[in-house]
Parts: sequence; structure tokens; C-alpha cells
Amino acid sequence: MLLSPSPRGADLGTRVREFIATVITPVESQYFADLAQARASGNAWKTLPLMRQLQEKARAEGLWNLFLPAGHGDEYAAKFGTTGGAGLTNVDYAPIAELTGRSFIAPHVFNCNAPDSGNAEVLLRYGSEGQKRQWLEPLLQASIRSAFLMTEPGVASSDATNMQATAIVEGDHVVINGCKWWSTGVGHADCELLIFMGLSDPNAHKYLRHSMVIVPRSTAGVEVVRMLPTMGWYDEPHGHGEVRLTDVRVPLSNVIAGPGRAFEIAQGRLGPGRVHHCMRLIGLAEHALELACRRAVSRTAFGKPLVNLGGNRERIADARIAINQARLHVLHAAWLLDTHNLSAINAVSEIKVAIPTMAQNVIDMAMQIHGGASLSDDFPLAAAWLHARAIRFADGPDEVHRGVVARFEIAKYRGAES
Amino acid sequence: MLLSPSPRGADLGTRVREFIATVITPVESQYFADLAQARASGNAWKTLPLMRQLQEKARAEGLWNLFLPAGHGDEYAAKFGTTGGAGLTNVDYAPIAELTGRSFIAPHVFNCNAPDSGNAEVLLRYGSEGQKRQWLEPLLQASIRSAFLMTEPGVASSDATNMQATAIVEGDHVVINGCKWWSTGVGHADCELLIFMGLSDPNAHKYLRHSMVIVPRSTAGVEVVRMLPTMGWYDEPHGHGEVRLTDVRVPLSNVIAGPGRAFEIAQGRLGPGRVHHCMRLIGLAEHALELACRRAVSRTAFGKPLVNLGGNRERIADARIAINQARLHVLHAAWLLDTHNLSAINAVSEIKVAIPTMAQNVIDMAMQIHGGASLSDDFPLAAAWLHARAIRFADGPDEVHRGVVARFEIAKYRGAES
Amino acid sequence: MLLSPSPRGADLGTRVREFIATVITPVESQYFADLAQARASGNAWKTLPLMRQLQEKARAEGLWNLFLPAGHGDEYAAKFGTTGGAGLTNVDYAPIAELTGRSFIAPHVFNCNAPDSGNAEVLLRYGSEGQKRQWLEPLLQASIRSAFLMTEPGVASSDATNMQATAIVEGDHVVINGCKWWSTGVGHADCELLIFMGLSDPNAHKYLRHSMVIVPRSTAGVEVVRMLPTMGWYDEPHGHGEVRLTDVRVPLSNVIAGPGRAFEIAQGRLGPGRVHHCMRLIGLAEHALELACRRAVSRTAFGKPLVNLGGNRERIADARIAINQARLHVLHAAWLLDTHNLSAINAVSEIKVAIPTMAQNVIDMAMQIHGGASLSDDFPLAAAWLHARAIRFADGPDEVHRGVVARFEIAKYRGAES
Amino acid sequence: MLLSPSPRGADLGTRVREFIATVITPVESQYFADLAQARASGNAWKTLPLMRQLQEKARAEGLWNLFLPAGHGDEYAAKFGTTGGAGLTNVDYAPIAELTGRSFIAPHVFNCNAPDSGNAEVLLRYGSEGQKRQWLEPLLQASIRSAFLMTEPGVASSDATNMQATAIVEGDHVVINGCKWWSTGVGHADCELLIFMGLSDPNAHKYLRHSMVIVPRSTAGVEVVRMLPTMGWYDEPHGHGEVRLTDVRVPLSNVIAGPGRAFEIAQGRLGPGRVHHCMRLIGLAEHALELACRRAVSRTAFGKPLVNLGGNRERIADARIAINQARLHVLHAAWLLDTHNLSAINAVSEIKVAIPTMAQNVIDMAMQIHGGASLSDDFPLAAAWLHARAIRFADGPDEVHRGVVARFEIAKYRGAES
Repeated sequence: MLLSPSPRGADLGTRVREFIATVITPVESQYFADLAQARASGNAWKTLPLMRQLQEKARAEGLWNLFLPAGHGDEYAAKFGTTGGAGLTNVDYAPIAELTGRSFIAPHVFNCNAPDSGNAEVLLRYGSEGQKRQWLEPLLQASIRSAFLMTEPGVASSDATNMQATAIVEGDHVVINGCKWWSTGVGHADCELLIFMGLSDPNAHKYLRHSMVIVPRSTAGVEVVRMLPTMGWYDEPHGHGEVRLTDVRVPLSNVIAGPGRAFEIAQGRLGPGRVHHCMRLIGLAEHALELACRRAVSRTAFGKPLVNLGGNRERIADARIAINQARLHVLHAAWLLDTHNLSAINAVSEIKVAIPTMAQNVIDMAMQIHGGASLSDDFPLAAAWLHARAIRFADGPDEVHRGVVARFEIAKYRGAES
Repeated sequence: MLLSPSPRGADLGTRVREFIATVITPVESQYFADLAQARASGNAWKTLPLMRQLQEKARAEGLWNLFLPAGHGDEYAAKFGTTGGAGLTNVDYAPIAELTGRSFIAPHVFNCNAPDSGNAEVLLRYGSEGQKRQWLEPLLQASIRSAFLMTEPGVASSDATNMQATAIVEGDHVVINGCKWWSTGVGHADCELLIFMGLSDPNAHKYLRHSMVIVPRSTAGVEVVRMLPTMGWYDEPHGHGEVRLTDVRVPLSNVIAGPGRAFEIAQGRLGPGRVHHCMRLIGLAEHALELACRRAVSRTAFGKPLVNLGGNRERIADARIAINQARLHVLHAAWLLDTHNLSAINAVSEIKVAIPTMAQNVIDMAMQIHGGASLSDDFPLAAAWLHARAIRFADGPDEVHRGVVARFEIAKYRGAES
Repeated sequence: MLLSPSPRGADLGTRVREFIATVITPVESQYFADLAQARASGNAWKTLPLMRQLQEKARAEGLWNLFLPAGHGDEYAAKFGTTGGAGLTNVDYAPIAELTGRSFIAPHVFNCNAPDSGNAEVLLRYGSEGQKRQWLEPLLQASIRSAFLMTEPGVASSDATNMQATAIVEGDHVVINGCKWWSTGVGHADCELLIFMGLSDPNAHKYLRHSMVIVPRSTAGVEVVRMLPTMGWYDEPHGHGEVRLTDVRVPLSNVIAGPGRAFEIAQGRLGPGRVHHCMRLIGLAEHALELACRRAVSRTAFGKPLVNLGGNRERIADARIAINQARLHVLHAAWLLDTHNLSAINAVSEIKVAIPTMAQNVIDMAMQIHGGASLSDDFPLAAAWLHARAIRFADGPDEVHRGVVARFEIAKYRGAES
Repeated sequence: MLLSPSPRGADLGTRVREFIATVITPVESQYFADLAQARASGNAWKTLPLMRQLQEKARAEGLWNLFLPAGHGDEYAAKFGTTGGAGLTNVDYAPIAELTGRSFIAPHVFNCNAPDSGNAEVLLRYGSEGQKRQWLEPLLQASIRSAFLMTEPGVASSDATNMQATAIVEGDHVVINGCKWWSTGVGHADCELLIFMGLSDPNAHKYLRHSMVIVPRSTAGVEVVRMLPTMGWYDEPHGHGEVRLTDVRVPLSNVIAGPGRAFEIAQGRLGPGRVHHCMRLIGLAEHALELACRRAVSRTAFGKPLVNLGGNRERIADARIAINQARLHVLHAAWLLDTHNLSAINAVSEIKVAIPTMAQNVIDMAMQIHGGASLSDDFPLAAAWLHARAIRFADGPDEVHRGVVARFEIAKYRGAES
């Protein structure tokens, strides 16, 4: 159980840290000012020039597409710019994801942001050569953006088998109908690729009914009904959309890996994706704890620095403990994914339950130490807190993942049943 | 310990409930649509026509200024439109506040919203006849709006004695300098009254140094530097502002109750205000629980209604228990305010600690049952959750109130010290 | 909603408080020393002489059988010694139960201890005149003791319909077979009355299958298999036993209220009983908080009194808040039992969920402030903590009561189901 | 960060697991029956014959003194029977400690129980050759037992500098006076070695005032005043005593490492000791979770196995998550102790805060699933729960360790102070 990165992973981590500190952080507030201005002028749904510049610098330094996995991803890592020309293990990438998670824009700078990274991984693992050439390559160059269409407004999507949108094979085409929402990325002007998940054969086994289909954004019948606010935020330029698909026709060859394999693909997509989410949240929690400590030692009330008031030290200690446990937990899941793929399903569900709530709580504590200031955008805390909360739904709500963990645990004792 | 309302209070409660159900609720989504449109056209910082209409109806029915307290407020209740022509006790008003708290606009409709109601109460209890005529009467007619300027960006305002803005008596004037923020209401076009709290005599006893001063919004030297987002929301039309005051001169007669009495006044203002906040939050939590139950019985996942999945029933039970305890707790504090004024300080601090967190947790649970939908504005849950969180800062953060409660508790045993 | 006691209730409360302070508390440590000695000499399973003396004093002062309910209990209260000669409402008795709960022996001194008080109530409400004469009267004189035989070792007794012990009517007798445990009181030398609950008619409606039967302890076939330790304690002199009943025959007239009515009776027995348990736990929690405060102001570490270290003040505040909410909650349930009997089932379940856990947590906090000393018997904290924990099982575990609360809550929205 | 054991460690772990399963577990209930009988006959304060037999078997298999540390402990591991003849790293020993922690007697069987193992480590690291010969060797042969005298009843011992018992150097002797309690092991008939910590020089630096002194149990002036119950249990045969020392004189050579070094030694003793405590608690929590799952799949209520009722699955999932995080956390602290000794102080404090509470909560959940049965001694749950609770005091209460963690965290930002 080796939970520390390889020398190459460690070196990339050092360089990512340095890049964030010297290149990204100094312009982060400028980025948000530019974004606010773009928003005011109705022009926020595209990559800002400053982001393009940052991406170019990152790519030039080989800090690009670092999420590409060792093994499957080596060829593409070599071709699309990662230093050392090979994909990283999850144990190598996890600490890097943590570093990028401290900042709201860093994942985009390194082209390692959801959902593009997850969509790239789907194409990498399950796509045909043609699909990779047409969609994966531009994604890895950040020349296009993508969205993943899974959740539906009409049903409890926590149970993915509830999905009702259809992807019916008709001869050498697939015809798609239905409504999706929380389609992250669909608002972006460069979003050309939609990966759609829908019901193809209602009579098949529960996990063999659905297909995953590539739908070019420009196909007739695709309509973005509205962009959804997330607790008031639209998260431009990518955003989250509600998408109606009406008699959308695409060639049969757009089905990824063939009809009926959507669940298999989703499972493969979501394991590393959840590790990334969790590690980024650990970075966010670390950032919040750092802000809390800085504030607590520098502000005074009732004649003492805040750090010496009431339970503040205890809360800081509890936050440190929670973060440290969380990091080891995620690294262990990453290591299981790297080494024991199949047995990692429950480990991934475990971290998906535990880490977002941990982050929400740590950030809540940091807010409380900042007082009302934390509600404003003078600090990144409010946005961090909302983000951690939202991740408790993304890729399956806490309750569903607890169910997975419990099922594995109970299975050990099924022989004990009377 | 009679915790239920008088017949008159109960009757007003029934009528408020009916008014909300038949007059407010049916147009609430229209109101927010109007507000969104006003926001889009840069015109959101004033009372919308629909709100004016609702206020007129409420006033016509005598459901107006219900917050006015029995005793001090009777004359004004008679004059400004409350049915029955007298103020209500806290025990009578608390259930009404709960009802209005279910809706984000109801408190405004009944002219019972913070900070106007609290500012009215300050004038009522401590204002001169002239001050009442000039400021209280238009407030009670909703012809002007007001703001309360206390918190400062530069210091930990949880310790109010930290306040550094000054209100220096110079002859028959007061000269004000400093910077305030989280001045709720200051964004409103009708906001004409600022009640400012500042340091007058640094050499006086800690609680006798500050004065509370009426500052007309239009006075030279008053500048709203910016409106502050609260976790991304600007809460138009009233909003929360950062206000710089530079050599602002007002007549000495604008000092409420005379120099040095700000803490005394603030204490009187905040007791009932905190009861109102807490009761409104209980209404909000009830609303969230209702939505959670409705969703849980009507949505299906894994072959069962959500209500029968995992721990959902237990969470619903825990929410019911928490709300019921909270309501009794606040009613008891209200009763203490009505009957034992002085001994109610700790009771008010107790509820200020307990109720916002309770509401935040209940709403968080309701969100989780709604899944991703709860993040959108299709449901009032995200806004409710943010509101409950924000109230954990308003009128003193949790930690300060815990300190008050502990101080009272420990005082019982001081004789036991070695 | 009048939650304070009547003048008579208040007066009795004052006298109970005084009696505990001046008569019981001064000899409480002597009582436990006597008990330890009795235990060492194998002689602990009977009422100690000191307890007899205390009981006589209490009875002489009319502080006796105070649990007897207003209405049904008036005649017996008059006859068996309660001052004022009438039963008390739940709202009157609840604060008295709180006072007695501060001490481990006070409930016995006032003849208000479980399970005797509950058994008395069963006989009072459902017993025949003959049953009352034979069993109720000596119970109210404390000349006999009793036990309640419900829980079974072989099944999950949280679901009472699981019960498998049988009470079969054969002509004019009932024949009983089965095994019960956690039969509190069965260890006492004076325990002459067992109230047994068993299955009479497996074909009847689920809640009409069981009967409640009076079984004299001396009947052939009744065997106490063992006394059970509760986390190591045997709770002499009453204790908790495992009882095997083999072909036990009693006259049909021993069936309380007739065959098939056990669930109806149990429900009536348990409502007030749970209120008593909860109020006594509030007394215990208050006692723990008092000890915590006394210790925290009088001990020093790291150069400060404990009360000024870390989060201790916040924990004290949270304990005060939790206790105050709990007390109001139980008083409200008591008031509902007094005034709205039927609608109180969920209120009773609510307090049964909330209060024992509250008490466990408050006592845990008090222990932590005492350090290792709290583990010893120099303080009543360890015993208090174990007791609160155990009550989370008594009269139904938390989970079952949460289920009841949820069922009531959800029932409001059943129309909303799709 | 390699958190898995070496091949030798893994092999020893496998053999320990096998030994527990085949040799210890089958006789564990017999052991407790023997102990109960010994207790009944007043003969419980010595090693039972069955324990001697188990110890001989363990020693014969080289599963003996496994706690001895790699490096310092190699010679003794070779001489006193550990297979492979060398001490183990903390990372190697931690999983073994977890296995022994599942059972209440296994640590004694392997001669790895507190406080003997900790005392052995003190002698090993800081003792003179003579001290090792006289005391360490018989300890490692289990021919004597020992106690550690640190905590005092008269002061808050959470602040160790509070200690008031004295160890005054007078010529070539040390004279000891004072009162200690919670001296674990002092009740055992074979307890010959007391390691005493007391104040030697009140004028020295705070951490250089105290000395650690070897006091033979038989020295004149040593009196065991009483054995202390821990929540009702006396934990025979070792127990926890209150010890009065009156003018106890021992040679100066009995001072370990010389006067004034007690804090330095205690720190070295406590690091690994806390890792052992925490890993054993993880074993205990795993055992409780296993029992909970077995019960939950085999018992039925309301027509379903318990595992499918209410929130039981979620609680099982949360327990699994908490245990897994805890294990990684302790392994990481063990690895830091092995590799970065100095930086491990805060890591050790972190686990000391987090793991006992985790264990207490998991065991509490398991109890709740067992219902009232868990209170009896039919299951090891009550004892496990009390043990986990007690460990929250042992080696420093939670609050003190939180303080250490916070101090390290805040130190990073001291430059930020204004």
C-alpha cells in the first residue's frame, strides 16, 4: 500500500504547485473581474482571453491533460503535451488534483476539468479510432468543450435505471428523444460534443438497457431549454443546462462501444472522476483551513486573537484531523483503482460519501471564523461552500453511495442469515 | 408559562395564514419573475408594483405592522393599521412570524421585515416625539425604507465594542466618520433613514462609549461604496451595502436617547428581533420539511418511494423533532421577553444559537431528498438554505451567543470556585 | 398550551425538592455504602432498612405515589397518601419526576419508580376491582414489588408483535409458556406480582393477538433463570431477570381486561411512563451539568480554570440549550397527554427519541470535564451515563420511535403520492 | 508512504490471526467464567491458570513481546522469544495490535498489554543495564507485572505539569511522597514494579522539573488505598488503583535516565503506546461492526431483517467508512513514528483524538442493533463501549490532544499575525 507518488508524479506535483503560485494565483482575481465584466455585457459563455493565455502557458510547460491515465492514456499524454509523455496513475495524479482544487480556475488551466476530462476518458477507453480522432483529440487540445447528458428532471436520477430518455436503434441510425438536465458544460460556446445516455432496449437486463451516444451539439433537434442556476450561480462559461432532444438522429457508429453498454462505460468513467472530485475538494478544504487560521491569528475580539476564543482551536484541530483522514482515504481508493480495479467500487463510494461532507463542514467552520465577510465575494469561502454542497449530489447522492458501501459490507455475512 | 396566543393573536394568525395562502402564494412566482426582469433591466432596487399591491391589500385587512409590541406599540398599531388597534405580545406575534417566514416575500407584504421593523422599534422605544413623527410614521406606512449601520469591515464586529467608526459630538452637531458594511436595506431607492452606531467617547465605560444616530441617507458624506453579494445573491430591492461616511454632520438631536446609549438601545432592539428571525426560520424549516415529505412520497427510485429508502424516514423524524423543540424554545423565549424582560437575555442567546443551525440542517436534508433539483430555483430550498446559513452571522455569530449562555450558566457556580 | 404546574403541583414540587435536599441527599452515600455491604454479604436483593425509613418519612409527608394520575387515580391518591388527596396531571407531575431523577434512589423513596408505577397504572386503568384490591393496594403501600414481562431473548422485541411466549386460554385457566428477559424488578425479594404479556390467538388481528396476565411470582413453573448485568451492574435490589415460564397455570380472571387486549393496555401504560423516564433523565442531565460547572470553575490546568480552556464554555452552553429544549419538549408531550390523549402518541415517541440521547451527550460532556475521576464511583456520572444509554432501549429503541414519528409526519402528505 | 507491513510483519500478522482464531477465541468464554469464579471466591487478582497456559503457547510459537520496537528492541526480541528475533516497526506492529484488540484477553496472551509494554519500552530506551536486567527481563518473561504512577486525584492531571507528588533527591536516595490514582496494573499479585513520576525541582524549567523513578512495590511507605471501579468494573486481575506514597526511599540509581527527565521519557513512551491503543480500538470497532452485521442479517422485525429497516444500512456504511479512515490514519502516524520521529507528535495527538470517539460511536451503533441484549454480558459490546469511552481519558483527554494539533496547525501562520 504505497500511497505516495512516484518520482515523476512528485516532480509534476512540485511544478503544478509552482505554476499555480506564480502564474495562476496572481491573476485569479483579474480572471473573476473579467468574468464579471463579460457577464455584465452578456458575453460570459466562452473561454476568456486570460484563460486561453493561461492554458497556453500550462501546455507549453507540459502541465496539460495530467489526468490521462497510465496505460490507456500514454499515447495521448505523449501526443498532447504531458511532460514525460505518459499517463499518470491515480496515486500520482491525486495530489495534483488536490493542488488544482485549491483554485476555482486551475482545473481548466491544466485542461483537467470536469466534465471534459471524464468525457475524454470515456472516449479513450471505449471509443473507436474514428471517435477518438474526431472528438478526443480536439478535447485534449481544448479546442472544443463537451457535456455529459445523464440526469433527467422527470425522475429520481439517483437510480440511474430510472432514466426515460430513449436512444432507439433504427437501421443504421439512432433516434434520440427525451429531456436531460444538469448537463454541465452545455452552455459553453465551444461545446460541440454531447455524450448522451438513454434507454435502447427496455426488455434487456436492467444494466444492459442503456446506450451511450455521441451527439454533436449542432444536430437538429437538440435544444438547450435553459441554463440552470446552482444556488444562484450560473458558473459561466460552461454552466449547467436543461437540454431537450427531439427526434435527434445520429449514425449508429456514434454509439460508444455498441448499444447496451452505457452502464459499463459509466462505471469506468466515474471511478477516477470521483477520485478527482474528492481530491480537489481536499484542496479546497485545505485552502479554507488556511484562510481560517490566517484570519484567526490576525483578528482580535474581546481582547484576544480569534484563535484563542471559545472552541476555535478545537475546531481547527478537528478540521486538520478530518482533512488528513480524508486525504489518506482518497489516496487509498486511488491506489485500489490502480492495483485492484474491481474491488475499488466500494472504496470509491466510501470517499464519495465522506469527502464532500467533510469539505462542506471544514469550509463552514472557516466561514464562521470570517464572520459576515465570508458571505461576500471578498473571500472564496461562499463559493467553496456551495461547491462542496453541490458535489454531494454530483455523480450520485450520498445516500446511494452509502447503499453501495453497505451492500458490500453486508455481503460478507450473508451466510449468517437465518 | 402560557405559550399559546391570546384569542386575538390566534385570530390574526388564522387571517395571516389565509392571506398568505390565497393572496401571496398564488403570485409569489410572478413576483420573482418580475424581479428577475427588473434585475435584467437594471431596475431592481425599488419596490415592485406587485409588492405595492400586496402591501395595500394587507394594510386594508389590518394585517399590517403586526410586529408592533403590546404596550409601547399600541398607539401606533391603532394609527397604522393593525386589526384590533393594539400591539401584540411576543407570544402572540411569534406564530405569525413563523407563518410569514415560510415565504421570502410575506414579511415585506405585512411591513414586518428586517431591518425596518427593528428600526421602527428603536424609534418607538427610544425616539423623541420629533424623531417618531419624522421617521417612524413613514416607516410604518412603508413610504420610506431604512438601514441599520453597525458591522464594520475592518474589525471583528462580533465584539461590538471593537467598532471604530466615530460619532463625535461637536457643539450641537454630531460628526460621523467610518466605514460600515452588511448594512441591510441600504440599496433600496426608498431608503431614507440610516441608523448609525459609532464611538463617541473612548474614555467612557466600555458599554457607554457608543451612540446611535439618525443619519438621513441624503446627508453629504454618505456614500454607498458597493452592494455586497450574499453567497452570490444581492437580495434586491433592499440588498446589503458597504457604506463610507466621511465628515457626515447631523444635528445633535439626531442622537437617539442621547450620546452613549447605543448598547442599551441595541440590546432592546435585538431581543424581539432575534425572536422574529428565529420564528421566521422555523417557518422556513417547516416549509422545507413539507417539501421533503411531498417529494419523498411522490418520487420513486430503486422500486420504492424515496420515503422508504435508507434513512429517509429517520431523517424526517429527526427534522420533526428538531422543529418542534425549536418552536417551543422560541415561544418560551418570547414568553420570557413578555414577562421577565431582564432574564430573557440568555434565553434570546440560546435560541439565536440553536435555531438557525437547526433550520440549516433541516433544509439541507430537504435538499438531499430533492437531489440536484434543489440547487436550481425550481424550488425555494437553495435560497432557504443560504438564508439560514447567513442568519448564523446576523445579530451576532453563534460563538458569541454561546459565550453569553455559558456566562449565565457559570455565574450560578462562581461561589464554587477555589 | 399552559406548561407550568398548577398551584398544588408547584407546592408539591417545592416540597419534593426540599425533601430530597434535606432528607435524601444527606444519606445517599450511606445508602450506597449499605448496598455495597449487602452485596458483599450476598444480601442485596431486598429493600434496605435505610430505604424503608426514607419511604416512611416520604409517606408521612404525603409525598407518596405522586405518579397517580388525575382522574383515574384520585381515589387511590386519597387513600394511599398523596398530599391533597388527588392524582396529578402529567404537567404537574413532570417537574416532580425531574427532581426525583437527579438522584438514583429518590424515585423509590417516593414509591414512584419503574416498573411498579407503570404496573400500578395498568391495574388502575384496566384492572378489575378484585385485581386492584389484591395487587394494586399493596403496590401502592410498597409492601410488594412487581415486574413486567414483555421483552424476549429469542426475537427482536423492538417489534412487539414478534413476541412468541404464549398465554393460551384453556377453559377457565390460562396456560403460559415462554421465555422473557429484561424483566426489571424480578430480582427483588418482595416481587410478588408479574405482569406477563403473551400470544393468545395467532389468528386474530395483529394487535389483538396478545393478552396481559397477572402471574403471581410463586406460581409453579415460574423460574428466574439468571439476573442480567446491565453493562456490568446488577441494579440490586430490583435487578433485571431472565424468566422462564413452563406450563404456568393461572385463573382466567387473571387476564387483565380480558384476552387480546395487551397492546391496548401497553399503549396506555407506556405514554405516561415514557414521560416519567424522560423527565427523570432531564433531572439527571441537569445534575451532570451542575457537576460539570462546579468542576470547571474550581479546577485549574494550564494556568486557567477548566471553564476557560478550549471549547468548554461552548459545550456548557450547548448542554444548557439542549436541556432547556428537552424540558419544554417533554412538558409539551405531558400537556398533550393531559388534554389530547390520542394525538399524543407521536409526541411521546418524539421525546423518547430525543431525550435519552440528549442526556447521554450532556453526561458524556460532564464526564470529560471530570477526566478519569468520572469513571470511578466518586461521582455519579458513570452510572448516570450508563443509565441514559440503557434508556435508549427501554420501552422501544430510538429507531422504532423515529418510525412512529415519521409515519405521522408522512401521513399528512399521503394524498400527494403519485 | 508505505503503509503496509513488511513480509515478516505480514507473516506474523497471519500467525497472530490464526492463533487468536484457533487458540484464544475457543477458550475466551471459559476465561471469563474462570474469572467470575475467581472473583466470587475473592481470588481474582492474579493471573489465572488458563492465561498462563495461553501465554506459554504464544511464547512457544514466538508470538511474544511483539511490541518490541525495531532498533532498540532487537536484542530483547531475540532473547525473549519473538519469531525472527528482531523488533517490529510501528507499521509492522500496528495491524497485529488491531488483531489483538478484537479480544479483551489477547494482548495479555501475547505479553503486549498496557501498561507493561509501555513500561518495558521505557526501560528499554532509557534504563540502565542494571535496570534492564532487574526489571525489563522479568517483564518480558511475564514473571512480574508493573504499574505506571502518573495521574493524581488532587489536580487536573490533563496538565501533567500540575503533578504535585514529589521525588526529592536526598544524597544518594530519592524520597517520594504523594498520591496517585488510575495506576493500572497495581492490583495484580505479581505487580512488583512501579514506575513513578514526580516533582524533583520546582525551580527548573517546566518540563525539566520531574523525574521518573523505579519503586519496587514492596518498598516501605507504598500503600494501595483502594482499587477503583471503571464504570462499575474492576478489571481484574490487573485493575486500577489509588496509591499513597509516604516517605518512600529508593536509591538514586532508581531514577530512570537521571533526575528531571520524566517529560522527555513520557513523550517517548506515549507515542507508540497511543498507536497501540488506537489500533486495538480499531480491532474492537471492527469486531463490533461484524457483530452488528451478523445480527442485522439474522434478526427480523416488522417483517424484514433488521438490515433493511430504517437507517441501519446507512449506519453500517458510515461505520465502515469511519473505520477505514481511522485505520489509514493510525497507519500513517505509525509510519511517521518509524520515519520522522519528531514530526509525529501532532500525528499521534490526531489519532488519539479521533480514534477512541470513532470506536465509541461504532460500538454504540452495534449496541443499538442488538437492542437490550447488548447491555448484558452475552455480547462483548457493553464492555467494548465502556473501554472505548475510558480511552478518551487515557494518556491525555481529547481536549488536550486537540490543543496539540491546533498548536501545530496555527504555528504555520504565526507570521500572519498582526
